[in-house]
Amino acid sequence: MIIVLRPDATEKQVNHLVAKIKSLGLKPWVSKGVERTIIGVIGEEDIIRVQPLEVFPGVERVLQILKPYKLASRDFKKEDSVIDVGGGVKVGSKKLVVMAGPCSVESEKLLIDIARKVKKAGATVLRGGAFKPRTSPYAFQGLGVQGLKYLAQAKKETGLRIITELMDIRDLDTVLKYTDIIQIGARNMQNFNLLKEVGKTKRPVLLKRGMANTIKELLMSAEYVLSEGNFSVILCERGIRTFEDATRFTLDITAVPVIKNLSHLPVVVDPSHATGKWGLVGPCAKAGIAAGADGLIIEVHPKPEEAMSDGEQSLVPANFEKLMKEIEKIAEAIGRTL
Amino acid sequence: MIIVLRPDATEKQVNHLVAKIKSLGLKPWVSKGVERTIIGVIGEEDIIRVQPLEVFPGVERVLQILKPYKLASRDFKKEDSVIDVGGGVKVGSKKLVVMAGPCSVESEKLLIDIARKVKKAGATVLRGGAFKPRTSPYAFQGLGVQGLKYLAQAKKETGLRIITELMDIRDLDTVLKYTDIIQIGARNMQNFNLLKEVGKTKRPVLLKRGMANTIKELLMSAEYVLSEGNFSVILCERGIRTFEDATRFTLDITAVPVIKNLSHLPVVVDPSHATGKWGLVGPCAKAGIAAGADGLIIEVHPKPEEAMSDGEQSLVPANFEKLMKEIEKIAEAIGRTL
Amino acid sequence: MIIVLRPDATEKQVNHLVAKIKSLGLKPWVSKGVERTIIGVIGEEDIIRVQPLEVFPGVERVLQILKPYKLASRDFKKEDSVIDVGGGVKVGSKKLVVMAGPCSVESEKLLIDIARKVKKAGATVLRGGAFKPRTSPYAFQGLGVQGLKYLAQAKKETGLRIITELMDIRDLDTVLKYTDIIQIGARNMQNFNLLKEVGKTKRPVLLKRGMANTIKELLMSAEYVLSEGNFSVILCERGIRTFEDATRFTLDITAVPVIKNLSHLPVVVDPSHATGKWGLVGPCAKAGIAAGADGLIIEVHPKPEEAMSDGEQSLVPANFEKLMKEIEKIAEAIGRTL
Amino acid sequence: MIIVLRPDATEKQVNHLVAKIKSLGLKPWVSKGVERTIIGVIGEEDIIRVQPLEVFPGVERVLQILKPYKLASRDFKKEDSVIDVGGGVKVGSKKLVVMAGPCSVESEKLLIDIARKVKKAGATVLRGGAFKPRTSPYAFQGLGVQGLKYLAQAKKETGLRIITELMDIRDLDTVLKYTDIIQIGARNMQNFNLLKEVGKTKRPVLLKRGMANTIKELLMSAEYVLSEGNFSVILCERGIRTFEDATRFTLDITAVPVIKNLSHLPVVVDPSHATGKWGLVGPCAKAGIAAGADGLIIEVHPKPEEAMSDGEQSLVPANFEKLMKEIEKIAEAIGRTL
Repeated sequence: MIIVLRPDATEKQVNHLVAKIKSLGLKPWVSKGVERTIIGVIGEEDIIRVQPLEVFPGVERVLQILKPYKLASRDFKKEDSVIDVGGGVKVGSKKLVVMAGPCSVESEKLLIDIARKVKKAGATVLRGGAFKPRTSPYAFQGLGVQGLKYLAQAKKETGLRIITELMDIRDLDTVLKYTDIIQIGARNMQNFNLLKEVGKTKRPVLLKRGMANTIKELLMSAEYVLSEGNFSVILCERGIRTFEDATRFTLDITAVPVIKNLSHLPVVVDPSHATGKWGLVGPCAKAGIAAGADGLIIEVHPKPEEAMSDGEQSLVPANFEKLMKEIEKIAEAIGRTL
Repeated sequence: MIIVLRPDATEKQVNHLVAKIKSLGLKPWVSKGVERTIIGVIGEEDIIRVQPLEVFPGVERVLQILKPYKLASRDFKKEDSVIDVGGGVKVGSKKLVVMAGPCSVESEKLLIDIARKVKKAGATVLRGGAFKPRTSPYAFQGLGVQGLKYLAQAKKETGLRIITELMDIRDLDTVLKYTDIIQIGARNMQNFNLLKEVGKTKRPVLLKRGMANTIKELLMSAEYVLSEGNFSVILCERGIRTFEDATRFTLDITAVPVIKNLSHLPVVVDPSHATGKWGLVGPCAKAGIAAGADGLIIEVHPKPEEAMSDGEQSLVPANFEKLMKEIEKIAEAIGRTL
Repeated sequence: MIIVLRPDATEKQVNHLVAKIKSLGLKPWVSKGVERTIIGVIGEEDIIRVQPLEVFPGVERVLQILKPYKLASRDFKKEDSVIDVGGGVKVGSKKLVVMAGPCSVESEKLLIDIARKVKKAGATVLRGGAFKPRTSPYAFQGLGVQGLKYLAQAKKETGLRIITELMDIRDLDTVLKYTDIIQIGARNMQNFNLLKEVGKTKRPVLLKRGMANTIKELLMSAEYVLSEGNFSVILCERGIRTFEDATRFTLDITAVPVIKNLSHLPVVVDPSHATGKWGLVGPCAKAGIAAGADGLIIEVHPKPEEAMSDGEQSLVPANFEKLMKEIEKIAEAIGRTL
Repeated sequence: MIIVLRPDATEKQVNHLVAKIKSLGLKPWVSKGVERTIIGVIGEEDIIRVQPLEVFPGVERVLQILKPYKLASRDFKKEDSVIDVGGGVKVGSKKLVVMAGPCSVESEKLLIDIARKVKKAGATVLRGGAFKPRTSPYAFQGLGVQGLKYLAQAKKETGLRIITELMDIRDLDTVLKYTDIIQIGARNMQNFNLLKEVGKTKRPVLLKRGMANTIKELLMSAEYVLSEGNFSVILCERGIRTFEDATRFTLDITAVPVIKNLSHLPVVVDPSHATGKWGLVGPCAKAGIAAGADGLIIEVHPKPEEAMSDGEQSLVPANFEKLMKEIEKIAEAIGRTL
């Protein structure tokens, strides 16, 4: 922590800060520059991070030196984490993982049909929402528990692992019965109580970046899960809010290598939600893999015209299959496999 | 709903869309322009809004005509809603309402001290967090139920109404026992299940705008509460995420008149969270009132240096008192009272 | 300047940096913390600011302590600058300055008519574009020199001071003949050669904030003008680009007090461009004054339906007059005059 | 153009609009829906686009149907444009084009050394700034004409084509003497007079997207060049401003396929400026190619520690060479060549 003082800061103000720092068991060092005096703080930055130093008289700015997350940090764990989601599927290894399926679970028959098709194309995890966060209270809210049961049936028939979203703490036990990976959606990235609860389970978690959240905040939300003892966290870049309106969100492709630098956790890209348009899913999926992502999560629906949600961003199975072949080539080009 | 076709759209594609629209019980009209054919849809826009028309072959773009919210809309209710929060305090009338208090409830003594001071300065509602959403799992998370009890005590001693944040559905019944207004924080603006639950109570709700949410989305989240039968919703502008880093968020002051045009619900401004710096709270509070807000929610702490959260954006009571006098003058200038 | 090293930085890397700093005539001090070593640099920060220290091996991050602008800074000049634009009109004093007029100069008759009306309502500067920056090459591009002549005529008839935009260095001498204040538009805020050229004149400059520029960058662009010897710079907040699409731009009202803290230069608010809608101009104009702005620049047109540009954001003279009366009351409430 | 009326719009207001539309030689059609009347306008949308229809009484919103750019549009020209920049180098064909070199031209010796190295690695165009747009007036502003001469010398020695930035209309003739591609920087994307002037030349232009500009605005700026008769325009995605501060800008990778859909013009990606950090250049360059870009523009410097600008984002030649080999594999994977 570096405290930058105002040019007119008095000796008394400096001493007041020094006393405060010492009272916290930390070590201050004062450096007088040409234009500004600055105070460095040596010791556990966590102790002082929560102090409102900016309100101390004479303080101009406070600069943090250390990262506010620990367990999620590459400093804490040098080697890449590989998350075992069961059934031989591991996220974060040389082999890419593709999760695919409909936005919402709509019917058993349809789901199993999609499951078979995405499996054939190379996906190893089936996605499908049973509880849907919808902007409008009047939109389809998902099939609920019935949807979860269909997912279980699809797993039984295909052997695919299952990922589904948990929105409500009250549904945790139910969701745990049916899913291999718990998805925390973008709108819940800072639902801290929900994060703590999934942290208490040992089930793998896919944590989506909030649409207005920085990479640092994503890692701090991951820290909530990790600090409860659950180290099986997969991060997901799914687009952020910007002024550009040609797409639903702006895929922050650079987040992939940035996260890889800062953290040991694997990261997947969601080109369906990032773009909101099926015609853009392919280029963005390929870009995600080229940028170093460990996998993809893609919406697939055989009849997008009739999809109960997100039809406009769903690939039909034939296009998904074609894309998988292209991704396989990109994977090879960068020394990975699909 | 207007469907804009691609320049190369075929007759068959047009007919396919027309058939779909008719099958939904709606009325299509087709207009062939110089460069584009467009199809208008007459009837309940809600029915067609959830259809993924953009995936139909030949479609270039789909334009919504009607607002996706109903009950929150000024079209639904022409006159301003005035929310009675009890104790003679009404939000949305000519008289402004100022809610003030500490970020977190820290101790009974401190809280009651602040309560007395903000009351004396003219505040009629006491704010204070018992459950705190914190970016870091290692930061102070609030006193919980004990904090709620202190709020109740402060109410007893001062007569101020109470507002406190609800983060977790499991705490709803407890929070209802102690608060007059349920605050839904920015990070929970799209926690739709939480919105539904507070919608089922009849308790007034202060709904904060999410940091990356549009005004339209704020109104749709309000619609979640209203559609459950709770019409006592107060909206709150508290700053949005932008590229500007001189402040914590960017106060979207124009949201005040925009919301007033679109909706009948009252709107208050939170200059403390919007700016993140106590020295900017005054100018932004005054700007909020000048722009037409129905009130303010302001953080006040007698010793910001020792505050357990948000010290850097808290006013000391003397500055709050001074600000209230200035706000009174602005109120008069625009024909309102404090 | 603070250089934060990576946790694995070697002694050799530290020495390499220390040597570099010394070779620049600056003084390094090295501090070893629990998790990170940091190096502070004492001396002229300008010398080291341009060094790409982040590429030195072992460096994690570089933190700037000092502001990159000097002459525009409040540190350089404590008291508020008051810019004399002639004719007794001074921007930055207790008395507010309102600049008003059409977006584009369209005809002499119309311009003089508007000039008389805005003068009667209390404006002291007439705005009007002769050279118009238009997003589309097919849109009306302004009357050019003829427009400047009409402005001169309007000045002659009303005594109002003139402000008009300069887009092209080649037009500088011509524009100087007709205008009292040179406006640099948002799209030219970082047209550095243009800034240097207006810096070489002594004519007052109104510098608009770019739609994607930080306050810091605005002050650095002002520095371009100041460093050429022209200290008559008025800053203008006119809205920034954000994800919110209910308005054309998002008025960053907090920029007003932030600029007042950082700089001695006066600042005015442009509610017309910030909102893009005439119905929002009034609330935002009042908010701007309440937040501490030194003036306003507002578009006025008697027949917005026929305006050749920006009709949707222009006030009719009657509404402008009404607004001026409201602003007068706000001005009084905060101890200023109109 | 679709005009949406307010629910309370009167018959008289509708007639007033209808009359206006007819007076422009266009054809109105009125459609009365359940909640709103809307008026469609058939005919040249350009005529009505510049009309401020939103100020007409009774109008709620105006929706544009057609794109405001013509010549840049894929509707205007179906097949991809291939821009011949001389020396056998063509941008927009199956073969990718990589432009590489230092941020600023610093000395003849250094430039020629870099030129040889990037050529050996596979680049076919040499980049280098002689006129530099710098945020600070105190930063190195480029060597000017001397820099251009060094570029010419490097071309002579290596056969590489040259790209350099034009900032000032007054330098146009000089720059034309030395460069094969005129670069228009992000800060000048809406310097419309500069665009017109380069449009009057027939020299290829690389037009960078402004940091706060939409893809639509980029295409409208391209339209400025095209409408003057210069069809040799290469577009460049170089990152936009967002709230994320882990990188200098946010690379909008999806802009690549979006532009490919909307326009026939080729598009290249600039991973150096987009990220601002050399360690992120590789992943983003690969992502750009995987997403469908026609080429890259990359900063290369043998001693980034001593670079006079942008050292932190420059690759050393060895890393550039390594990256080129990786890009070659990605190119093959998607059916292109390097």
